[in-house]
Amino acid sequence: MAPIEHLKRTVIQCSLPAALEAMGERWSFMILRATFNGLSHFEQFQTTLGIARNILANRLTRLVDHGILERRACDDDRRKVEYRLTPKGEALLPTLIALRQWGEKWEAGTPNNPVLVDAQEGKPVADILVRAQDGRPLGLHDLRWVDRADIERAEARCIYTGEPIGAK
Amino acid sequence: MAPIEHLKRTVIQCSLPAALEAMGERWSFMILRATFNGLSHFEQFQTTLGIARNILANRLTRLVDHGILERRACDDDRRKVEYRLTPKGEALLPTLIALRQWGEKWEAGTPNNPVLVDAQEGKPVADILVRAQDGRPLGLHDLRWVDRADIERAEARCIYTGEPIGAK
Repeated sequence: MAPIEHLKRTVIQCSLPAALEAMGERWSFMILRATFNGLSHFEQFQTTLGIARNILANRLTRLVDHGILERRACDDDRRKVEYRLTPKGEALLPTLIALRQWGEKWEAGTPNNPVLVDAQEGKPVADILVRAQDGRPLGLHDLRWVDRADIERAEARCIYTGEPIGAK
Repeated sequence: MAPIEHLKRTVIQCSLPAALEAMGERWSFMILRATFNGLSHFEQFQTTLGIARNILANRLTRLVDHGILERRACDDDRRKVEYRLTPKGEALLPTLIALRQWGEKWEAGTPNNPVLVDAQEGKPVADILVRAQDGRPLGLHDLRWVDRADIERAEARCIYTGEPIGAK
């Protein structure tokens, strides 16, 4: 059976569309990168990113509405507003680093600078990979899609081929 | 010195903008997800994603232009065209899985279904993390930005604080 037929039989509950609703726009990623780099003020984002003020205001509002940034009074000057990453925002770090590494390898042509290193060893962070629970790196062909109900019944099988998964 | 001053002193060569130029749009991610799920024909994308034909055609062209998908004659029927992931496209897997996992934890409210499992063990793939070369998971506060030239001189130090990195 063609993959599309299997997809139609399974109700697809994937969080990627919801994640993209929050993040799926170039400027949102760029603003987020800037906050990971310590920028927090409207004027800093504006001058550093060269983004139009109305678009910047719109994207900051969206990031705040989605709980990725929080808007608060600046400690130094209570009349000023700053934008800070929430825990939900910080949790986007692996996504951003994975995309940056991909861009470095496949798009940019020049090595990233500055380099993101592990503070303890001073070495560049490892390539971000999909891994099994036991740490094995997994490629596309090591992965299968399984219906959640089948996992709960301990009868995991590929939704495309029906092949049992993880059977010893 | 404020972070923004340090950023201005360092020439920022980051591949994230280039990666977003290729991928930074909601529909591009959705089309890519569909290709990872085995879809390959224009009509399949159109009916599965419910995307307007002109937008779909535009995004497919962009993904082909960026070398993420390749356009080729279908094996079954040489008059039909199909779109397949290139190695560069397959290399986006960690980014997509990281974003999906983030969405599942922080956005969606319902668990993803189907579940992506390791074909060998039948267990869901691990959470995607930023890791050190030796495998230690790294959070935001375990990371530093270092100028590439300083790494090459074996004098890695944080671009913000000047603190030496990895000194024993």
